[in-house]
Amino acid sequence: MSTDRQTSILSLNAFAPGDAEGLPDDLKAMVERRKKSFGPSSILFYRSPIHVASATGARITATDGREYLDFYNNVPSVGHCHPKVAEAVYRQMKEANSHSRYLYDIVETYAERLLATMPEPIAHVTFTCTGSEANDLALRMARMATGAHGIVVTRGAYHGNTTAVTEISPSSYKRGGPPAFVKLVEPPSEAAYGKDIATGFERAVAAAVAELKAEGHGFAAFVADTIFSSDGVFTDPAGFLKPTIDTVHREGGLFVADEVQPGFGRTGTHMWGFDRHGVAPDLATPGKPMGNGFPLGGVFSKPGLLEGLQENFGYFNTFGGTPAAAAAGLAVLDVIAEEELMARAVNTGALLKERLTALGGKYATIADVRGAGLYLGVTIADTKAGSGANADPTSRIVNAMKEKGVLIGVAGLGADVLKIRPPLAAGEAEAEAFADRLETVLSELGLD
Amino acid sequence: MSTDRQTSILSLNAFAPGDAEGLPDDLKAMVERRKKSFGPSSILFYRSPIHVASATGARITATDGREYLDFYNNVPSVGHCHPKVAEAVYRQMKEANSHSRYLYDIVETYAERLLATMPEPIAHVTFTCTGSEANDLALRMARMATGAHGIVVTRGAYHGNTTAVTEISPSSYKRGGPPAFVKLVEPPSEAAYGKDIATGFERAVAAAVAELKAEGHGFAAFVADTIFSSDGVFTDPAGFLKPTIDTVHREGGLFVADEVQPGFGRTGTHMWGFDRHGVAPDLATPGKPMGNGFPLGGVFSKPGLLEGLQENFGYFNTFGGTPAAAAAGLAVLDVIAEEELMARAVNTGALLKERLTALGGKYATIADVRGAGLYLGVTIADTKAGSGANADPTSRIVNAMKEKGVLIGVAGLGADVLKIRPPLAAGEAEAEAFADRLETVLSELGLD
Repeated sequence: MSTDRQTSILSLNAFAPGDAEGLPDDLKAMVERRKKSFGPSSILFYRSPIHVASATGARITATDGREYLDFYNNVPSVGHCHPKVAEAVYRQMKEANSHSRYLYDIVETYAERLLATMPEPIAHVTFTCTGSEANDLALRMARMATGAHGIVVTRGAYHGNTTAVTEISPSSYKRGGPPAFVKLVEPPSEAAYGKDIATGFERAVAAAVAELKAEGHGFAAFVADTIFSSDGVFTDPAGFLKPTIDTVHREGGLFVADEVQPGFGRTGTHMWGFDRHGVAPDLATPGKPMGNGFPLGGVFSKPGLLEGLQENFGYFNTFGGTPAAAAAGLAVLDVIAEEELMARAVNTGALLKERLTALGGKYATIADVRGAGLYLGVTIADTKAGSGANADPTSRIVNAMKEKGVLIGVAGLGADVLKIRPPLAAGEAEAEAFADRLETVLSELGLD
Repeated sequence: MSTDRQTSILSLNAFAPGDAEGLPDDLKAMVERRKKSFGPSSILFYRSPIHVASATGARITATDGREYLDFYNNVPSVGHCHPKVAEAVYRQMKEANSHSRYLYDIVETYAERLLATMPEPIAHVTFTCTGSEANDLALRMARMATGAHGIVVTRGAYHGNTTAVTEISPSSYKRGGPPAFVKLVEPPSEAAYGKDIATGFERAVAAAVAELKAEGHGFAAFVADTIFSSDGVFTDPAGFLKPTIDTVHREGGLFVADEVQPGFGRTGTHMWGFDRHGVAPDLATPGKPMGNGFPLGGVFSKPGLLEGLQENFGYFNTFGGTPAAAAAGLAVLDVIAEEELMARAVNTGALLKERLTALGGKYATIADVRGAGLYLGVTIADTKAGSGANADPTSRIVNAMKEKGVLIGVAGLGADVLKIRPPLAAGEAEAEAFADRLETVLSELGLD
């Protein structure tokens, strides 16, 4: 992966500070305040950033009164500002909310409810506050259990922001790349492996493992987000991961399923991304949607992995799995069941995919439509790429959609994939509206 | 520090699974549930753990109706379940709560309010969810800015739980110790440095820096919790850190002030621990009390440190500084001001210190009383140490206090310091009750 492509994934739908001049005065003032406080870590979306007033379901309303159809955010997975989650957190924050060195009914109940959704051999949960903390801890556990340091990930992977997980997140590097003990394989696409993705991907991972061993790093784990989101969304055929996971285990490594993206029913058919592939992880790390905006993550592990950690270190996470976090998490599980959000993800996702596939038949700009449930990727063909600031059709589409009141993002090694990932609360009417506006944008941009 | 002592700090006030037999049936059942779900990561306090029903101010009520005076928890710093914090979070979770790639009035306001409490040269804030994430990020920034890898910390330091910050947390190691690029200095005690702690500590840090440079690691940062909590609470004389920080800067390193323990007014006289020493940090990392139980942390940095991070990596923290987190954080700042909690910390802390010092005159078991504001350390002399399970007087006191309805913890390299750290909401009546019960316990245990 070239440095240019890396940079473009990270910046393609970001606000560039130089664009501030063209903004309305109040928005410009807000951007200035943000830049002053956050400094170079101020990262805002879109050429004209959004000043949020309120949000509900799959809709965000800005302070200028504009309403946006949110097809981008997977944290508010059961819907922005879901009252059931807010009320559960409120009730618990008024009642009791300290750390898990004390016992609480709600924490024990939540842990058991979650574990009941996990297959054998998963036995334990260790709560954290974020998916990053979860992956950082899972890495430590995998390395302690195997006595090896080497990790295999895909070339466009993102697994979080701590020092250790940044090393296994090639998409985070703007210069250079991960250290030698991290080997990269191409994402599981037809472009890389042809029709037989299962075999091709397994061979690539096996070769990476052999390389790690030959170089003396040993093989600790294969870490994968099983919808390969940042790689560009590669979900099919379901089951293609099976031979890879068999090889991982045969080679003495662990399979860490990063469930930050696919977890909590996003694929519709399964609660967890690994389930969809008919494989079971040694460690699974959910995050973002887990608390619908309340910081919550976790490491699920099979027996025998926590012992090494606790024999060597006094690991404890103060904010991980507090009663308020458990209240948020339980409410999320309840809402997924009560509002049948997984069935909705199947139906809404199917409709959306059908509409986008139909658009693909009409507009050559749409090179491919893929995904599972409510996580879709649309590859944009570089049909009319020219020079100048507006040359990149993906960026043009994302920003034009924003101006039409629809929020989406960008993914993929070539930063050429529309990342479509609405809250699971999005319904068929929203899917139709989304497809209609995409067609308008393609037509208006002359991208036929 | 010997391995034995390390282990004892971590386990001295922990529930040992073997103790479950003596517990009441309902508590025993809860402990069993916890052990099954959490596995070896189940860490519970006290020989007989607490099953919490509710909490308010500095009081926790268990499900068996027992009330505990909480002189241990610094997360609910403005008081357990403070209604103002709960309501602020609730209001925001119902209104708008996505990540900081959008703009929100409440996030900008909170960032500015916090930055106004920080001295020159601090200019920016980067929000995280925990103190661990904050220290992990601060380490990366310090290493990038200096091009060096070496860190100096105290021998009993604790700075968090990620892979990278565990390396600079010697108190987390149950076996062995930190890597070669982390040099340890003795905590700033009279025992280690004599009367002139300022000079002695500076010389120790200078020697550690020289060692790092001689070994080729270079010197990136001196990281310190400025009340040296896990080291055993060493706060005096205020200002003793000044020569050390001057040396750190002269040697080209950065001073990272870990404000997880002293921050948000715990010392009473100052909002931040470094302020009390008349020094300014290059990076400051608050955590625990920041959101009074809502996961929230941050890295405060001087100009020029975030550039390296953002030029090399696409750092972003999804849950860091969300509107709900900002709401919690703003409410905490408001309550500290409205309820004059810093003045209370001064007064309550002074009364508590006076009462404990008087007890020290009466009971030889109390070897030393020290601390600032509402963070006190009481060294327990090993006067009657014998053999057998109950030989350790510190452990006996902590568990006997728990049975008398008072919660405290243990700190120090020798695990011989009572860690007294109530919510700032604790008042004079609670301080008197605490001292009374400690006297009863010392008397009943025959520790004169």
